[in-house]
Amino acid sequence: MQLKNYNSIHMTKVTPNDGIFKKRIKTCYSATIPSSLQKCYETGRIDAFKLDWQEGMPNKPHIFWDSDVAKVLEGIANILALYPDKELEKEYDKIIDLIASAQQKDGYLNSFFSSVSSDRWQGLYMNHELYCAGHLFEAAVAGYELLGKKKLLEVACRYADYIESYFGRKEGQVRGIPGHEEIELALIRLYKATGEKRYFDLAKYFIDERGTSPNYFAEVEGKNFTQIERFQAHKPVREQTEAVGHSVRAVYLYCGMADVARLSDDDELFHACETLFENITRKRMYITGGIGSSFSGEIFTTDYDLSNGSLMYAESCAAIGLARFASRMFNATGDGRYAEIVEKTIFNGILSGISLSGDKFFYTNYLEVDDNTYSYNHGAKERQPWFDCSCCPTNFCRFLPEMLSYIWSESDSEITLNLPIANSCQSTFGELEVISRYPYDGKITVKVKSNKKFTLKLRIPEWCKKYEMSLNGVAVTEKAEKTYIAINRTWSETDVVEYNLDMPVRVIHSNLKITGNTGRIALMRGPLVYACETIDNPKGIANMIIKKDQDFELCEVAGLPAETVGIKGKAVAESSPDNEALYFEGDLMRENIEFIAIPYALWNNRGAANMAVWIRCE
Amino acid sequence: MQLKNYNSIHMTKVTPNDGIFKKRIKTCYSATIPSSLQKCYETGRIDAFKLDWQEGMPNKPHIFWDSDVAKVLEGIANILALYPDKELEKEYDKIIDLIASAQQKDGYLNSFFSSVSSDRWQGLYMNHELYCAGHLFEAAVAGYELLGKKKLLEVACRYADYIESYFGRKEGQVRGIPGHEEIELALIRLYKATGEKRYFDLAKYFIDERGTSPNYFAEVEGKNFTQIERFQAHKPVREQTEAVGHSVRAVYLYCGMADVARLSDDDELFHACETLFENITRKRMYITGGIGSSFSGEIFTTDYDLSNGSLMYAESCAAIGLARFASRMFNATGDGRYAEIVEKTIFNGILSGISLSGDKFFYTNYLEVDDNTYSYNHGAKERQPWFDCSCCPTNFCRFLPEMLSYIWSESDSEITLNLPIANSCQSTFGELEVISRYPYDGKITVKVKSNKKFTLKLRIPEWCKKYEMSLNGVAVTEKAEKTYIAINRTWSETDVVEYNLDMPVRVIHSNLKITGNTGRIALMRGPLVYACETIDNPKGIANMIIKKDQDFELCEVAGLPAETVGIKGKAVAESSPDNEALYFEGDLMRENIEFIAIPYALWNNRGAANMAVWIRCE
Repeated sequence: MQLKNYNSIHMTKVTPNDGIFKKRIKTCYSATIPSSLQKCYETGRIDAFKLDWQEGMPNKPHIFWDSDVAKVLEGIANILALYPDKELEKEYDKIIDLIASAQQKDGYLNSFFSSVSSDRWQGLYMNHELYCAGHLFEAAVAGYELLGKKKLLEVACRYADYIESYFGRKEGQVRGIPGHEEIELALIRLYKATGEKRYFDLAKYFIDERGTSPNYFAEVEGKNFTQIERFQAHKPVREQTEAVGHSVRAVYLYCGMADVARLSDDDELFHACETLFENITRKRMYITGGIGSSFSGEIFTTDYDLSNGSLMYAESCAAIGLARFASRMFNATGDGRYAEIVEKTIFNGILSGISLSGDKFFYTNYLEVDDNTYSYNHGAKERQPWFDCSCCPTNFCRFLPEMLSYIWSESDSEITLNLPIANSCQSTFGELEVISRYPYDGKITVKVKSNKKFTLKLRIPEWCKKYEMSLNGVAVTEKAEKTYIAINRTWSETDVVEYNLDMPVRVIHSNLKITGNTGRIALMRGPLVYACETIDNPKGIANMIIKKDQDFELCEVAGLPAETVGIKGKAVAESSPDNEALYFEGDLMRENIEFIAIPYALWNNRGAANMAVWIRCE
Repeated sequence: MQLKNYNSIHMTKVTPNDGIFKKRIKTCYSATIPSSLQKCYETGRIDAFKLDWQEGMPNKPHIFWDSDVAKVLEGIANILALYPDKELEKEYDKIIDLIASAQQKDGYLNSFFSSVSSDRWQGLYMNHELYCAGHLFEAAVAGYELLGKKKLLEVACRYADYIESYFGRKEGQVRGIPGHEEIELALIRLYKATGEKRYFDLAKYFIDERGTSPNYFAEVEGKNFTQIERFQAHKPVREQTEAVGHSVRAVYLYCGMADVARLSDDDELFHACETLFENITRKRMYITGGIGSSFSGEIFTTDYDLSNGSLMYAESCAAIGLARFASRMFNATGDGRYAEIVEKTIFNGILSGISLSGDKFFYTNYLEVDDNTYSYNHGAKERQPWFDCSCCPTNFCRFLPEMLSYIWSESDSEITLNLPIANSCQSTFGELEVISRYPYDGKITVKVKSNKKFTLKLRIPEWCKKYEMSLNGVAVTEKAEKTYIAINRTWSETDVVEYNLDMPVRVIHSNLKITGNTGRIALMRGPLVYACETIDNPKGIANMIIKKDQDFELCEVAGLPAETVGIKGKAVAESSPDNEALYFEGDLMRENIEFIAIPYALWNNRGAANMAVWIRCE
């Protein structure tokens, strides 16, 4: 297989114009970063690096705290690259100084295992040390690449060097692997930033070692250790064909696998990535791009087990991980079905995780919330400002600006427009400007300000059944290949590509094997999945039946941003002759009503409500 | 409140004639008891009483093992009373000798905490010592009352005396309570068998102490102990209005509360029982009588949270506990709505827990099983011969014969026929014989062989909308009160009451607040809940739609016992134009088919299959 050499055009080269990315990134700067930083201080996550915690003091450090701080730092680097801010930069430098001071002489750096516990490396399967290290590396690379700051990068390299000396297959080394994957993809970033091949080798070691025999976790934890699958360590990664276990760990691993496969032209490893991606997206993914069907263990379960309520998980971090995995797969193949998943996850299962205000978060992204929804671990019917395990809020700190990196990819001869969000982009071939109201409207104008020869590829999403495209007013008739239409020419500074992606309201069924969704439909328009909230549908959701064959109307939605496009249509509301009886005989009453659906990602921005994506139909 | 003084007519006075109880009890003798006994030996549960287990030996004892052995012993006593068997009795005596030998000098008796651990009473919230003690007391009482055997009763009394000296509010005593309730109802049985008031007092202490301040569990486990509600210890039991926490613990507690309330004319306590019963049966109970909506913690969750698949629990033991609680409430009130729940649970949610062969068990009684059902703790798509925590199989050892005790109740002037199963009964007023094919047929003949004056009360179930009744051929026109028709007379030896409970197929809706059941119906006939299995419905269940308005037919069911009555009718099977796609647009195909439904309790007796109780309707 010849892997493509697309690279995402980095967010620093992309300026969002109006539209939802710009707004979301601005709230990241104004709300998500400040509130997360404040929480990190309040909870002791930052002071933990002082290494002076003692029994009896408040804010006992926790094994995964360092990762939260690192993710906020990475988010600050991302944001500072877009919004220079001296105050914030000073804060950022101060925290890095503190972190650097916590590094041990041998390079080890972990606030928990340098203060609360001395069990360094003693519980790899649960102790998150390598996971925390990975996030530290990512923060360091972001600071270096975006802001030119070297201090944390040097700290990271010293730590990585120590890890590289400690783990491996050489005599005297420990053949361990992380219980929570993350360091693999982080080491690749560190390798790319520094050019140090040993970081690539270490990432590859962690990936290749996983699930081999003798199995590290089984050896350390004993033969009765039954959770190996939860850590994707039940078999070598190249032999894995189903996405299993903890869903965030899984997709973080697959990101690392995709990176290593591409950098080393490793067909076998890449093929495993393809197979795992197919398994997720064809059998184990919510319509929103959410993944992880069970709060219990935060795991993937079985094919088509995709229930919508209390049991499900669909953690924000898992959706973010899936977008990152899909983006890597796109860049390695140029195949639009991967870009389709990037789009689906961002506009639905990821952005649902954060409030429009930027300071409240879903950990669990339910597809249905009722009066009787029971909140298991990290489940909540309303977004929360923070969690004891606050991986999701801190992931948003970095992911919101990172969204800009998913708009474009380029190779040495091509540029692909993956998400036609309004933006201006400085590519290696010149400036490109996208004018659109995407994802709320399918009309897109691309102004190419370049006089170079290159191929501009414009994505025709799989959801789009009809489109028109023109170049300087002349129809473009090329067929889409792998969902992209390629326009290859020497461009002039005034070239304009205009296209329109037809965006009717679509009625979606799910595979009949998803048994909870039979008799139900979801509405989509463009890439957006819609949901009904009781705010707009006060007669209730579970008792509402949408008529499938009808002309849906588009509408504004009171209380949501002006650009939001809602869907309006005819429905029937059932009511009961006996509201008190648990079970009863007799006919239900029916009443014609009008329903309103809103973009799923925007639910719970107007107060508490019941909500469902999958609505009964007839 | 004047509590009634009904008592269940004990199973030893009731002989089952043909019909499902007789068959089930016979398999208890021929299969359930032998297989459970064998498993108790195989797993080391019986040898554990030798107290010689040491590290490195197989079959490490477990904290709840003693309860399993005790329940099997209680089952053997029940069975020996019905089927004298010298071999089995020898075995029974031998085990009792072994148990007696394990009693400590001070009376304490627990195989785990006398061998593996010495942490006696150190973890009341989880260690199950008082729970095991309760089951030992119940076994002892059964052996004494049914077989006249005193040895285990003496052991039990010594243990109870020790517990009574250890726990309580006197100086030097520990104000502890059990984490897993059971001992309360057991102490009442011990009190009734021995007349020793102190056992009643101890039961009352455990009940009254629960949830008081200072809270025992919070004190011992620390202020952050968040599981208090799981143990029904979040507030005093008299103030509890919602069934919360571990469902088996809850109903065992409520049984004890009902016993204490009745014996001490404690209106306040009895009112709490009524309120809790209402909360369960009006808001937190499956249509089968199953309770416990979540495998996670094995708990009650919130009102109307009654999902049907992977998440649910509906443990067999919980349904058994609910039947016992309901029976106590009936005997205290004479109100047929309690008898209705006894009936519902036995014929549906309890008997579903055991195979017709008597040697395989559901711990979790799903109402829906699909290809994608994911089995969490103790969940299984097929009945299993045993579990690591095997409370359910051993509960069936005692419950199957115990079913006979739910047929009749009597007071000093009345006899109530609660379950008109074919049987002969030796009441204090003379012999009564019931001829019926109940629950498969509503025609019931009661022959009264007595010349005494008493009131015979015959239950007209709430599910029965039409009935006829005659005494010696003359119509009985009395109205039912609290669902019972009372015939008060001086009886003659040849009196015959005949009645017919109309048993059409009933189409049942559930409250619209049970959101997963909207758009679905369940079929019932008489007290039986029906289910569809893919064995009879090979085109699938989740894609099947039953036409609500139709004349259902009754039918035989291939592979099930000859007396079984199935339901046959018209349905539509949906199929998909795209079996591969996870989500898709387009219309589904529809095909007219015939469906067959079988009694829910009998599903999975013909091999693995998918199954559902709640079926889509139109």
